[in-house]
Amino acid sequence: MLYVTRREVFSASHRLHNPDLSQKENEELFDKCNNYYGHGHNYVLEVIVAGKPNPQTGYVIDLKVLRDIIREHVIKKLDHKHLNYDVDFMKGINPTAENIAIAIWDQLEDKISEGKLYSVKLYETENNYVEFKGEN
Amino acid sequence: MLYVTRREVFSASHRLHNPDLSQKENEELFDKCNNYYGHGHNYVLEVIVAGKPNPQTGYVIDLKVLRDIIREHVIKKLDHKHLNYDVDFMKGINPTAENIAIAIWDQLEDKISEGKLYSVKLYETENNYVEFKGEN
Amino acid sequence: MLYVTRREVFSASHRLHNPDLSQKENEELFDKCNNYYGHGHNYVLEVIVAGKPNPQTGYVIDLKVLRDIIREHVIKKLDHKHLNYDVDFMKGINPTAENIAIAIWDQLEDKISEGKLYSVKLYETENNYVEFKGEN
Amino acid sequence: MLYVTRREVFSASHRLHNPDLSQKENEELFDKCNNYYGHGHNYVLEVIVAGKPNPQTGYVIDLKVLRDIIREHVIKKLDHKHLNYDVDFMKGINPTAENIAIAIWDQLEDKISEGKLYSVKLYETENNYVEFKGEN
Amino acid sequence: MLYVTRREVFSASHRLHNPDLSQKENEELFDKCNNYYGHGHNYVLEVIVAGKPNPQTGYVIDLKVLRDIIREHVIKKLDHKHLNYDVDFMKGINPTAENIAIAIWDQLEDKISEGKLYSVKLYETENNYVEFKGEN
Amino acid sequence: MLYVTRREVFSASHRLHNPDLSQKENEELFDKCNNYYGHGHNYVLEVIVAGKPNPQTGYVIDLKVLRDIIREHVIKKLDHKHLNYDVDFMKGINPTAENIAIAIWDQLEDKISEGKLYSVKLYETENNYVEFKGEN
Repeated sequence: MLYVTRREVFSASHRLHNPDLSQKENEELFDKCNNYYGHGHNYVLEVIVAGKPNPQTGYVIDLKVLRDIIREHVIKKLDHKHLNYDVDFMKGINPTAENIAIAIWDQLEDKISEGKLYSVKLYETENNYVEFKGEN
Repeated sequence: MLYVTRREVFSASHRLHNPDLSQKENEELFDKCNNYYGHGHNYVLEVIVAGKPNPQTGYVIDLKVLRDIIREHVIKKLDHKHLNYDVDFMKGINPTAENIAIAIWDQLEDKISEGKLYSVKLYETENNYVEFKGEN
Repeated sequence: MLYVTRREVFSASHRLHNPDLSQKENEELFDKCNNYYGHGHNYVLEVIVAGKPNPQTGYVIDLKVLRDIIREHVIKKLDHKHLNYDVDFMKGINPTAENIAIAIWDQLEDKISEGKLYSVKLYETENNYVEFKGEN
Repeated sequence: MLYVTRREVFSASHRLHNPDLSQKENEELFDKCNNYYGHGHNYVLEVIVAGKPNPQTGYVIDLKVLRDIIREHVIKKLDHKHLNYDVDFMKGINPTAENIAIAIWDQLEDKISEGKLYSVKLYETENNYVEFKGEN
Repeated sequence: MLYVTRREVFSASHRLHNPDLSQKENEELFDKCNNYYGHGHNYVLEVIVAGKPNPQTGYVIDLKVLRDIIREHVIKKLDHKHLNYDVDFMKGINPTAENIAIAIWDQLEDKISEGKLYSVKLYETENNYVEFKGEN
Repeated sequence: MLYVTRREVFSASHRLHNPDLSQKENEELFDKCNNYYGHGHNYVLEVIVAGKPNPQTGYVIDLKVLRDIIREHVIKKLDHKHLNYDVDFMKGINPTAENIAIAIWDQLEDKISEGKLYSVKLYETENNYVEFKGEN
């Protein structure tokens, strides 16, 4: 089994806010991440695909193909956007790093043309990152 | 002459927009950076101070002191903020990296307690950064 | 299952030495790491917690909370210290990266307030790092 | 169980080409990676060994020993070489990152003097990397 | 005065060789960099432009414009190429990092549409880099 | 004029302390950096040499030669040492980053075989670094 990773970067803004809670509860819970106009990050995304190398190509999946899949289904929808307002597949989702990673997994899972999606890693800052490996 | 540098990071959102231009001109000029709700970055700031080491301490300026000056006058005002709406000293300024660097210089220039402010470097992404060394 | 990581840095000195061995054996075994007065590193620590996101917050564990737990129980005890002499929970332990990682795990395991400690990664240099995932 | 990692770097050139395919097929498949004279990378290699710390040394494996094993059996054979023409153990292998990682695993598996080879990670660029953990 | 920098990456192979010298002299001088089939690097290029921000845009030069200039005149000619054989503007030049940086300067100097080319930095490895600031 | 840089790393411990001051003054001045047993860092050193490329070699100075000069005169004397006790050329010097950089300059200035020493940069942590360019 081999694991191949493609890294992409996108710059977005977000605001952590749960509409089921009062503003006071949101401020206590999310602190400066609840700032009304939002703030932003250079998100670093790593998408890992598992599989066996194709004997003809030596690739699990051509990383140029994986790059294009990620750019079409994720990057062009998230880059230079506000994650709370501008992104169809993030509507109604509180954009914590955890929830963004799950949403990216859902965008990509059935688009991977060779091998199988294994992991989505998302760095929000140089000190904070999350990894999602699917439901199981 | 010695140059000492302190690096700090802040996460903010911004929107590039010149109110003296039409919306069409803004879109042509700033493209996806003009997105209405803004987008964001993990800005990396390097502040460089020039001077001679104090013979008693061996420091040009104690980097813990420089850190505290930067945090008080810059980081706590920019971190987790929207640069167009939330920051007093950015009011009316189009927040390009160039203009943010100049504004940070203006905040810091007379606050440096030892040595002399030499340069403000600001990384907007891993591929784009600017440096301002004062007017002269 | 989601994995969330917080990265922290501490600067410490150490000396590799096993008192059950002769000085000659220590020198052969640990070479320049056995230097009498010690040497030091900027240790980079990554603490990984596994769990499911809380539906109310979208967090596995608030990374600001995780940061504070790590700083209270690990960083403030190790940073700017000599690991052989200054740290209660390292007493009598030969401070290899492996042994420091295990000791940090033991400090943190029952302090994690949400989710479950999954891994402690410790970078001693840019070329050498270790990972501990608990006994089992 | 502990995992210890040694990172090494080598600079090499390669050309992706499958001699069982026509030149046209090779160009379609490998695109600019099929360039006749080849191109190159600074490959970053991480070798991960799993085991329990030796009670006498506190090491899973002395990372200086692991470094020397990697340098003798991998780095001195690949560094400043053309992977298609200059390397005995790469003869007849299409040098994709996947295939290089498998070939490095095969070079190292029975040379690890303490613990057990767990993973070979190979970064071809800052955006593309692969990981091989053995056949099972 | 402001300095703005765009970073780009290209992967290329090269061989250090001076045809005016004997093969023995070349081997003594360039050692493993003289390897017949060449070797390669992920070159990191930083192009620095100096100027004053345009009051209408807040830019010294739009970094998307600078990116496109660099990609058209440098990256697409060097990326995935052998610098000794595939590049018109490198013909007859021994491709040391110094000589590549000077050749890139010559490609770019008159193409910069706003501001003035100030510096070309070229990282050959993480440990070796050169900077060229023009003849004067 | 070209500037060529070689980067090297050393791991050392140190204690900031001025024997002309009282212990109380030292603690106030140097805080946790005054810890009796010291602490340590992975110091990153960049040595920059300025000159013109030799027409025969294309080098300002062969970076392998520069590497060997730095390793002989600096790295092997500082790596895995305590800077207050183990290093001849640091005797009686309070080992702030500033003072270490000056001492390294003094070690190297007359050893550079081609070109001229231009700058010594020393990173103490990822957030703090200093640069020394000689007396003038």
